[in-house]
Amino acid sequence: MRKFVIALVFAAFGLAAVAQQALGERVEVASPTVNADGTVTFQFYAPQAQSVKVVSSDIFPSADHCAEMVKAADGVWSFTTGVLKPELYMYNFVVDGAKVTDPSNVYMIRDIASVFSIFIVAGTQADLYRVNDVPHGTVAKMWYDSPSLGMKRRITVYTPAGYETSGKRYPVLYLLHGKGGDEEAWTSLGRASQILDNLIAQGKAQPMIVVMTNGNASQEAAPGESRHGLLTPTIDLPKTMDGAFELAFPDVVKFVDSGFRTIATKEGRAIAGLSMGGFHSFHISKQFPDMFHYVGLFSAAIFREEGKAEIYSDIENKLVAQFSHHPGLYYIAIGKDDFLYTDNVRLRAMLSNHHLPYEYVETDGGHIWRNWRIYLSQFACKIFR
Amino acid sequence: MRKFVIALVFAAFGLAAVAQQALGERVEVASPTVNADGTVTFQFYAPQAQSVKVVSSDIFPSADHCAEMVKAADGVWSFTTGVLKPELYMYNFVVDGAKVTDPSNVYMIRDIASVFSIFIVAGTQADLYRVNDVPHGTVAKMWYDSPSLGMKRRITVYTPAGYETSGKRYPVLYLLHGKGGDEEAWTSLGRASQILDNLIAQGKAQPMIVVMTNGNASQEAAPGESRHGLLTPTIDLPKTMDGAFELAFPDVVKFVDSGFRTIATKEGRAIAGLSMGGFHSFHISKQFPDMFHYVGLFSAAIFREEGKAEIYSDIENKLVAQFSHHPGLYYIAIGKDDFLYTDNVRLRAMLSNHHLPYEYVETDGGHIWRNWRIYLSQFACKIFR
Repeated sequence: MRKFVIALVFAAFGLAAVAQQALGERVEVASPTVNADGTVTFQFYAPQAQSVKVVSSDIFPSADHCAEMVKAADGVWSFTTGVLKPELYMYNFVVDGAKVTDPSNVYMIRDIASVFSIFIVAGTQADLYRVNDVPHGTVAKMWYDSPSLGMKRRITVYTPAGYETSGKRYPVLYLLHGKGGDEEAWTSLGRASQILDNLIAQGKAQPMIVVMTNGNASQEAAPGESRHGLLTPTIDLPKTMDGAFELAFPDVVKFVDSGFRTIATKEGRAIAGLSMGGFHSFHISKQFPDMFHYVGLFSAAIFREEGKAEIYSDIENKLVAQFSHHPGLYYIAIGKDDFLYTDNVRLRAMLSNHHLPYEYVETDGGHIWRNWRIYLSQFACKIFR
Repeated sequence: MRKFVIALVFAAFGLAAVAQQALGERVEVASPTVNADGTVTFQFYAPQAQSVKVVSSDIFPSADHCAEMVKAADGVWSFTTGVLKPELYMYNFVVDGAKVTDPSNVYMIRDIASVFSIFIVAGTQADLYRVNDVPHGTVAKMWYDSPSLGMKRRITVYTPAGYETSGKRYPVLYLLHGKGGDEEAWTSLGRASQILDNLIAQGKAQPMIVVMTNGNASQEAAPGESRHGLLTPTIDLPKTMDGAFELAFPDVVKFVDSGFRTIATKEGRAIAGLSMGGFHSFHISKQFPDMFHYVGLFSAAIFREEGKAEIYSDIENKLVAQFSHHPGLYYIAIGKDDFLYTDNVRLRAMLSNHHLPYEYVETDGGHIWRNWRIYLSQFACKIFR
């Protein structure tokens, strides 16, 4: 265990600011450590604490999702897991009843109003989530004008390695988040830029632009990125599933086609999303049947709000009409334990009854990012072929 | 105080993943709250904790930089500050000896290996650090080729609002971080994109591109953004002040001038940096006297490593030579309490002895981000005029 009192770095060149802002005696520990045998060790310095737990539904999928850490004489609590499968894991510590992030781990991801510490156990599909020694694309946070929604809105755009200098045109995947998410979700929780960098470098996915929108039609930008300040994120947003976002979608496509070197045809566009983003993708692709050649529905909330807006009505006939435009791929994926499973059974029955072709992938697990990263990794390899 | 047990949201649509990953009973509190009277209230739910403190050298600049929180019967600890001046503040909680971030506040900034919760008290210069209702530029994380350093390297590029559609050429400010920093520092700790958005919208700064490099010549990218994985950030990096970064700087300029619509002349370029970045700016501008018309040295580590590399030798004669190219602005700023104060006294004496013109700004405080944000806000208004 590497320990030092932070005061030791006071004298180091250029670190007065750090020292000033890190005051308070403390012991530095390494946490988490992914061990060679595939186990993971957590450490947490809390000399006066009565109880410290590791809590994670990723690490401990059953039971109470936590494990008690054990305190050593030096005030450092620790816990070592069993062998963990390759994956990106999220966790917190609970210290004397307070849920916190791991102070020794600077890598964190926000999911709505909760922040989790993260780590990656390498191997299999998790290697797609790592930054590897491959050419990297550009990730830009920018603003576009949405006349339909009456506001400027923030967007995340991934352009593949070489975009700046190739002079080529690229197809575009529009990638939509779920309820409580925003234009940050797919690059943080979803590791979308790492997945695309890696799949493109391996020749498994075509070089493509990926556009990650904000699907909350009342919202200009992710929390903290708009004039509303550093507000507490909430899932209680108006206008997420009332048709406004879907009907305004051509604003996004127009912006992207005018500002980037895109293949501005149906064959050059895909749309996919998770949960509410699957719902949005379902309705947008149906509403604009000549806009997207590839459709991906990841744990999609297909039939929610049925009939509550014109775009959500007469679904079956509109689906039949959409398929008369011959989409190149209609991909449906969901976990066995997902609470939206039966909605997707109904969708597949509807498609099958009309002999409308689709691909179906069923995985273990429920309504979780582990699955959405896998679905993106699959879907990205199937489009623009 | 708003409270609810997180289990209540289990039933909410689309939130199974969140619920799964936020397991463990807890009480939600609002923290921090910037009150109407300019005080700030912190709250922290830790029913079994024995001691909770707020620690912050920004809030409590003197004494032990902390305040004891008081526990109420419901397990919620709280503390209210006195009236705080407008500023961006960083803080942590210390719970039973463990330093953690505020779990109710999703807004955090990393400084080397430490993560701080943040909030902004609005007003005066702090309004430049907020996202306001003004046109926003684009912030892109991208990679450029550095043949001189033999690697692809990550860079942050801010392009001003309207860049995508204006067809115009823009001047470029190269903005360099300090020791332990990287290409993320100026947009996170430095609020550079907010400062530029606001100053440009107010007509106080010219629309400009801002290029934020990684000044650690051994490093491809910020921690977590390279093939080295989610490693613990360190200040102990090789090749930060050995001349390699400075001599390779034309690689960056070449990339920017070829990939962006720049004004690719001396008059169209500025370079500025803090601490080690000021040291780099000092030596780069001196080494390439026809490259930058504007130079900003913020709390710069001017004479460190003197004579230890060719570029760090014969400083006085090279400065005289540089000024024969008539820089448009040579701006030096430092705080009264900065540990680099005397180095800057020496620089000013050297310049004055040779009648080389410079602007000098002296502020309160030491080697801290509060000052560097102020210096950037000033410098950005003085260049490209």
